[in-house]
Amino acid sequence: MSAPAVPDLLALDRAAQDLLFRAARTANTFTDEPVTDAQVAAIHDLIRYGPTAYNGQPLRILLLRSPESRARLLPYVSNANRAKTASAPLLAVLAADVDFHERLPELYPHRPQARDWLADRATRVEQARFNATLQIGYLLVGVRAAGLAAGPMAGFDAAGVTREFFPDGRHEALLLLSVGHPGPDAWHDRLPRLEATEVISVR
Amino acid sequence: MSAPAVPDLLALDRAAQDLLFRAARTANTFTDEPVTDAQVAAIHDLIRYGPTAYNGQPLRILLLRSPESRARLLPYVSNANRAKTASAPLLAVLAADVDFHERLPELYPHRPQARDWLADRATRVEQARFNATLQIGYLLVGVRAAGLAAGPMAGFDAAGVTREFFPDGRHEALLLLSVGHPGPDAWHDRLPRLEATEVISVR
Repeated sequence: MSAPAVPDLLALDRAAQDLLFRAARTANTFTDEPVTDAQVAAIHDLIRYGPTAYNGQPLRILLLRSPESRARLLPYVSNANRAKTASAPLLAVLAADVDFHERLPELYPHRPQARDWLADRATRVEQARFNATLQIGYLLVGVRAAGLAAGPMAGFDAAGVTREFFPDGRHEALLLLSVGHPGPDAWHDRLPRLEATEVISVR
Repeated sequence: MSAPAVPDLLALDRAAQDLLFRAARTANTFTDEPVTDAQVAAIHDLIRYGPTAYNGQPLRILLLRSPESRARLLPYVSNANRAKTASAPLLAVLAADVDFHERLPELYPHRPQARDWLADRATRVEQARFNATLQIGYLLVGVRAAGLAAGPMAGFDAAGVTREFFPDGRHEALLLLSVGHPGPDAWHDRLPRLEATEVISVR
């Protein structure tokens, strides 16, 4: 009797495995088909259940819908990413709310003093970045769950985007995200992935 | 005609939505049922396809299987997390490989000079942390995809764990993770989540 295939060791069915990970790809081109606010809300309604420390949920999502907002973003994007940024049906700035702790008495009601543990801004910035980044991981999965392709872009001037779009000083831009339906020649061949033996060690 | 229900706006079927997000919970207690190496390998085989910058894949997973290794971890865990850490069937230290750039000529072959862009250690540490944290987001989803409960724990002395388990100086501990089947009274009521209007803004 042979061992079960690796995908069959999971509870998640194969179609969902393909949709979210195995067949999903980062798109470099998109069709003109729009991404609606209802789709974005549905993605958020799914991924908001992902865990964060103190249930703090520091991720904030700024959708750049107007031509003016998109034009303001482009100077901060690296040359390599500028064309695909300009052509994406939906463009978002993903940011961390550095003052997420203000909501903790409501979000983490059994330990309302958690807000005071985060009184120090440097501690809070680190926590906000870490947990918002976890949530970006959930969000990329959520975009794929909506049948859409996500294009995360780290090649941009994050400090510049923070100044341009979050002059309140309470947000930090972490990543740009383009979302849409994949267009022609949306991707190259899949790049190699590390094997379990290269990633996992046991002690 | 009424609008479709929010979950039906997604391509992912409802059972998978529940398994990964809506019904999934962070477990505080576990049964004795073990988590096998084959299950861990199957989770990795799924989530390794998640995107990272330069395809760098900096996440490293250290499984603490021996009683000695688990005992070495406990002094670094906060009092609040110690009991559940000690009782978890599987305990992992999730870390970033700060020298992930060494593999880029192989992982990102069309731009082998990416390795040299990351020659500066401070830049690299930031990239390693950010992308490994994204991968932890995928990993938490992957644990749930295996029908298991994940218990991410940020309440620990990360610098101490890094020194204790990664004296090579090339890894940074980011999060502890307990994995298993939920035990009795594994969780309290679901904590409140932010609404889309509180998280998403449009410009």
